[in-house]
Amino acid sequence: MKPINVGLLGIGTVGGGTFNVLKRNAEEITRRAGRPIRIVTVADKNVEHARKVAGEGVKITDDAFSVVTDPEIDIVVELIGGYGVARELVLNAIENGKHVVTANKALLAMHGNEIFEAAQRRGVMVAFEAAVAGGIPIIKALREGLTANRIEWLAGIINGTTNFILSEMRDKGLPFAEVLKEAQALGYAEADPTFDIEGVDAAHKVTIMSAIAFGVPMQFGAAHVEGITRLEATDIAYAEQLGYRIKLLGIARMREEGIELRVHPTLVPEKRLIASVEGAMNAVQVQADAVGSTLYYGKGAGAEPTASAVIADLVDVTRLHTADPEHRVPHLAFQPDQVRDLRVLPIEDVITSYYLRMRVEDKPGVLADITRILADSEISIEALLQKEAEEGESHTDIIMLTHRTVERNANAAIKLIEALPVVKGAVTRIRMESLE
Amino acid sequence: MKPINVGLLGIGTVGGGTFNVLKRNAEEITRRAGRPIRIVTVADKNVEHARKVAGEGVKITDDAFSVVTDPEIDIVVELIGGYGVARELVLNAIENGKHVVTANKALLAMHGNEIFEAAQRRGVMVAFEAAVAGGIPIIKALREGLTANRIEWLAGIINGTTNFILSEMRDKGLPFAEVLKEAQALGYAEADPTFDIEGVDAAHKVTIMSAIAFGVPMQFGAAHVEGITRLEATDIAYAEQLGYRIKLLGIARMREEGIELRVHPTLVPEKRLIASVEGAMNAVQVQADAVGSTLYYGKGAGAEPTASAVIADLVDVTRLHTADPEHRVPHLAFQPDQVRDLRVLPIEDVITSYYLRMRVEDKPGVLADITRILADSEISIEALLQKEAEEGESHTDIIMLTHRTVERNANAAIKLIEALPVVKGAVTRIRMESLE
Repeated sequence: MKPINVGLLGIGTVGGGTFNVLKRNAEEITRRAGRPIRIVTVADKNVEHARKVAGEGVKITDDAFSVVTDPEIDIVVELIGGYGVARELVLNAIENGKHVVTANKALLAMHGNEIFEAAQRRGVMVAFEAAVAGGIPIIKALREGLTANRIEWLAGIINGTTNFILSEMRDKGLPFAEVLKEAQALGYAEADPTFDIEGVDAAHKVTIMSAIAFGVPMQFGAAHVEGITRLEATDIAYAEQLGYRIKLLGIARMREEGIELRVHPTLVPEKRLIASVEGAMNAVQVQADAVGSTLYYGKGAGAEPTASAVIADLVDVTRLHTADPEHRVPHLAFQPDQVRDLRVLPIEDVITSYYLRMRVEDKPGVLADITRILADSEISIEALLQKEAEEGESHTDIIMLTHRTVERNANAAIKLIEALPVVKGAVTRIRMESLE
Repeated sequence: MKPINVGLLGIGTVGGGTFNVLKRNAEEITRRAGRPIRIVTVADKNVEHARKVAGEGVKITDDAFSVVTDPEIDIVVELIGGYGVARELVLNAIENGKHVVTANKALLAMHGNEIFEAAQRRGVMVAFEAAVAGGIPIIKALREGLTANRIEWLAGIINGTTNFILSEMRDKGLPFAEVLKEAQALGYAEADPTFDIEGVDAAHKVTIMSAIAFGVPMQFGAAHVEGITRLEATDIAYAEQLGYRIKLLGIARMREEGIELRVHPTLVPEKRLIASVEGAMNAVQVQADAVGSTLYYGKGAGAEPTASAVIADLVDVTRLHTADPEHRVPHLAFQPDQVRDLRVLPIEDVITSYYLRMRVEDKPGVLADITRILADSEISIEALLQKEAEEGESHTDIIMLTHRTVERNANAAIKLIEALPVVKGAVTRIRMESLE
């Protein structure tokens, strides 16, 4: 049978992985896809490197735009990243009637609505399994595996760098800055780790998942994004004493009034499976009305795990590329005319529970003052840990876990607590999810 | 758009769940599928019960054969179970050009080759997500999510009843028989639990997974099947001391010479995620060359979790039912002419490691005799636990964990150990997998 011709844009880590896996498992993949999938052209600025990875028999060019207009190409794989030239190339490919496979979460989170609309108009597919959680087939699970369900919420460890750092901070009791350096030395964190440690990468991914889980547009700009840079080893230790782990979660929750879309460090009960996800691994827990809770676990990054997702998309697109659009799975799980205009709620409207740590004077009545403020704000306390003051210290730590409340309430109560003369400095506040 | 018409065979637990979820989430499902999916006919022996569950507006019959020949029906959902009349009905539906969705693992494990061949010939789809691990979309993950990979092995907790019993035995230190009674009282085990506790149900499911993972025919008859009825609480406790949990795993492994296909109690390192899967939950770990290890977790049984899988299949089939067969995903992941005739290896050829417990005389030289036998059989020891003899006891327990070896070797060594005069009774042997 006639092979399907792929043009690969960018042959860096993931591009190289894709090339190698397609070659190594060519027979296995053809046995499944029904026809060979071959990369016929590679575009990369570094032509020499591209030639070295791709070997002979593959056309190499430094002009990616020549690939997206090449009539010989059936599918364009975009692995350049970013949302500058990548956006232009993807839109250009679509206009030229090419199907697109991409691992570019930033692009989709920022410009997904435009891209999917263009693809819909032109009748081509844009597949993006590799954009979220690397090799874990979570997009397919959400889009096709759970179609019977009203998805209620999802919560994911979707950034390996930060999960590695948090695991190390907990294991070794070390501060963030030190572990970050270690992670950089080991190659788990990039030289400029901002996108990872500030939660931006996770926010891109949870934005994409929220769209296909709830049938809403991508609303990356409205997501609440908080990284792990200010997290202290003390809080990881206290959380552990209380039976919790701290994870950087991307959370999307459907509520009647709108959706919650947020990334922040989160206390999770240690008995939840997701709490045991260590190192650079990823996992996404999905709560849905019929199936209940399901969880998907695996490597969220790396050359071959990500290539695994890129190629799965290539096989899907290969099968359906001559089919009527109605036979295809909608890009965003829901039919394009069935996307709902449900807005992302501001963070003050989020409902969650909290871990609060405060430094207080070690004298009678302090706890009464604090708990009174919480009671007045209708915030009830689930657990409380008061440390004995260390010898010679006039202050001690109080740690509280609250029940669920609106963030606006919590903010107000925290302000009042911080205004108490017996409370020293700011209250440390970390959100908490039971994930039940 | 014209609704798709479904005939439902059997409206018991899962049938009722399917009916209810389709009704409750009709809008959500239509927004995804692009057209309404409606159950127009229900066949059940208990017409009165069927009428009560289905309400008015649905045709009820006690003649399932009239449904599979009804020209109005597009898809037949078979939820009768077993492999007698269910087989006839499914083959009949296929002959009549109906697509089939089934949750019937016994039927597929026993007669899958015949059924898929018939479906292929007739150009219809047979979908079976609900047959393995209930609501977890594991069939879709194996068949479509991991198409880039050479799947090396998979190991699953795919029977909730036995996992519940093992969790309880560990938690409470109780013997099997007692926990089984409790499970029956709680509805986690059936009145006749044979299929569950003897591992037959898990063997059906792992047989199906092996076929789509490796591209081989269903070979249920050749699977090695061992249940949990002879498992002692002592061994669960010893395993725990050594850092392991005992789980009933369904394991399929691809080797050059053939495939391993086996169900048996298995020691698993407690730090593996699958070791933390408790109660009636299911999980499947898949090892593949590109993506590495992925894991899928959720409810493996129950009305609505299973309905979730049935309906996901209905949506898939709805999308593709007018498409050319070449546009469809092959039933068993690989193109029908690409299925390999790789045979299941006999259990003696399986390569695994072992937990061995033996009762020995508490005197010098005993350990030397035993370790000599193992060394002569080229079985190396990974860990050893020798208990101090209790006061007044002349015998004590030795527990050993071995490295990987061929089962044939292990059998021979065990025989020699049992023949030693200092060893009392039989050696308890439980297989062990590192799942790395």
